Amino acid sequence: MSGRRFVIGIMGAGEGAAASEVDLAGALGELVARQGWVVLTGGRDVGVMRAANRGAKRVPGSLTVGILPSGPGEVASDVDVAIFTGMGDGRNVVNVLSSEVVVAVGAGSPGTASEAALALKSRRCLVLLAPTAEARAFFLALDPNVPVVSTPEDVIDIARRHHAATGGKPG
Amino acid sequence: MSGRRFVIGIMGAGEGAAASEVDLAGALGELVARQGWVVLTGGRDVGVMRAANRGAKRVPGSLTVGILPSGPGEVASDVDVAIFTGMGDGRNVVNVLSSEVVVAVGAGSPGTASEAALALKSRRCLVLLAPTAEARAFFLALDPNVPVVSTPEDVIDIARRHHAATGGKPG
Amino acid sequence: MSGRRFVIGIMGAGEGAAASEVDLAGALGELVARQGWVVLTGGRDVGVMRAANRGAKRVPGSLTVGILPSGPGEVASDVDVAIFTGMGDGRNVVNVLSSEVVVAVGAGSPGTASEAALALKSRRCLVLLAPTAEARAFFLALDPNVPVVSTPEDVIDIARRHHAATGGKPG
Amino acid sequence: MSGRRFVIGIMGAGEGAAASEVDLAGALGELVARQGWVVLTGGRDVGVMRAANRGAKRVPGSLTVGILPSGPGEVASDVDVAIFTGMGDGRNVVNVLSSEVVVAVGAGSPGTASEAALALKSRRCLVLLAPTAEARAFFLALDPNVPVVSTPEDVIDIARRHHAATGGKPG
Repeated sequence: MSGRRFVIGIMGAGEGAAASEVDLAGALGELVARQGWVVLTGGRDVGVMRAANRGAKRVPGSLTVGILPSGPGEVASDVDVAIFTGMGDGRNVVNVLSSEVVVAVGAGSPGTASEAALALKSRRCLVLLAPTAEARAFFLALDPNVPVVSTPEDVIDIARRHHAATGGKPG
Repeated sequence: MSGRRFVIGIMGAGEGAAASEVDLAGALGELVARQGWVVLTGGRDVGVMRAANRGAKRVPGSLTVGILPSGPGEVASDVDVAIFTGMGDGRNVVNVLSSEVVVAVGAGSPGTASEAALALKSRRCLVLLAPTAEARAFFLALDPNVPVVSTPEDVIDIARRHHAATGGKPG
Repeated sequence: MSGRRFVIGIMGAGEGAAASEVDLAGALGELVARQGWVVLTGGRDVGVMRAANRGAKRVPGSLTVGILPSGPGEVASDVDVAIFTGMGDGRNVVNVLSSEVVVAVGAGSPGTASEAALALKSRRCLVLLAPTAEARAFFLALDPNVPVVSTPEDVIDIARRHHAATGGKPG
Repeated sequence: MSGRRFVIGIMGAGEGAAASEVDLAGALGELVARQGWVVLTGGRDVGVMRAANRGAKRVPGSLTVGILPSGPGEVASDVDVAIFTGMGDGRNVVNVLSSEVVVAVGAGSPGTASEAALALKSRRCLVLLAPTAEARAFFLALDPNVPVVSTPEDVIDIARRHHAATGGKPG
């Protein structure tokens, strides 16, 4: 494969992730990988991050990138390339800037909320996947054009249109 | 004065700040300075940041610190000490970590939302001052214990209790 | 391929790179890729960064990661995965922390010098490839154990031993 | 006092600082404070950082700012305003960008070397105070115009000229 790869960021809760969020993240990670796109997460071995990487690695030839807050001890085993920032939660802005499409799964945790907000601030393409009612209302108040969807397939449709609109040239 | 200073972070919209948010920020900046506390903001010469610094500098002997996303061109004139991070919105996490109390004024802009969320993530003392209805509902869903207040005086009361509870030893 | 990939960081001058440094970086990038290892650089389309990525992409199946100071406009065309930090030179610490082995090519530019110094500070495995006399003397004064080599093959030997010593488990 | 304050960054070794470096840092911190300028350091309670802050606080009305790698546990007691970055050594770039003049004391430790190199990269005014022979040769090779001085008084002279040249308007 030649040329820069298209990157989808999958953001969501770590320790406190709901079972439904974990399931969505796994399915989404797999679907993203099937398109030949890169799965980018916060890289930790828990919750949405772990599930998205696991889902992606069910696909042969997939590529997963984790942007870690600190060191090697916390990397999910399905992360192919680990980027260690040493920046703690400051790495959230790197997650967002490095993703052509930022998917917030649930958006009911503080870390994910910060990433969704930073995505809007940085004018990244943000998608809310199965948000809580409060998250949906809050982010739509920040930007009425944020797409809110309920299935991983919906995310792929939006990402495909975004990919086409940018001429297949990432970010 | 000897010993580390108590720092209150005043976060809020820049270009899109409402007139009511600007007024609150100015009054709060002045009140914080009257306690002998340091006013910390994102340092830019616009909206809530400019107003909070201006309010503080009405008080003789006050001290204002601005944590800037980039360079000298954008500093508010009432910032005494400018910290240039070169990190863009990545500096939001520095704002939050450096404030004993993080006050989100309005919380209806993406940048402020990211700071309020990062404050919860980092277990900083977060206060919502006159939030939008959606912001109030969203952050209370993230943490039911977040204080929501409507006047700068309320913020000072909370900060004073926080200061006392920590033995006057910052953060 | 499964499991986390071994990452070699190739650091060196951008605009002011010497022709000999560019040649070394290209040869090194190719050799690293032939081992099945990931080439990590500062990602910009100039000097050592451009050459290392170009060299790596001569190898089918290679993977190149660029850690960029700012946005998409400056990415080298042979970077597969671009990580946008928005941190300017602050990204140098991310380059270093994310590389199991940090190779400073020449080490005669300020940016490369900062990366070599940060590698020592972070106790990363640092290799000086064809340093200037002053760089050699300076970094050996900082740490007498820093390996100084003159060919890309020497770098591969050191990296292979480092890889073996860590049980093939990246850092 | 009104208007933005002039900031001098004093960088140097922590745990491994030589006694002579500690003495120079203390004398320099005091002299900087006597000019009414702000002393900025990496803020930790050790070596050059501790000494520079201690020196400054011998002067009534002085102001010291510490840019910390992590949390409150490591702040020097003579730091008035602590900025917590949570970025580890990544905070070195913030130290440099926030200082109108960057003074490297000794420059014989990896952290200080990274700051001196980043100062050159960011085109900040860098001064080497009593560098090792190797540091002197290395940084002069990077930039032949870097001033190398042996006393704190020399630093003040250079800073005063820099201050005058920039119209007293910080950087």
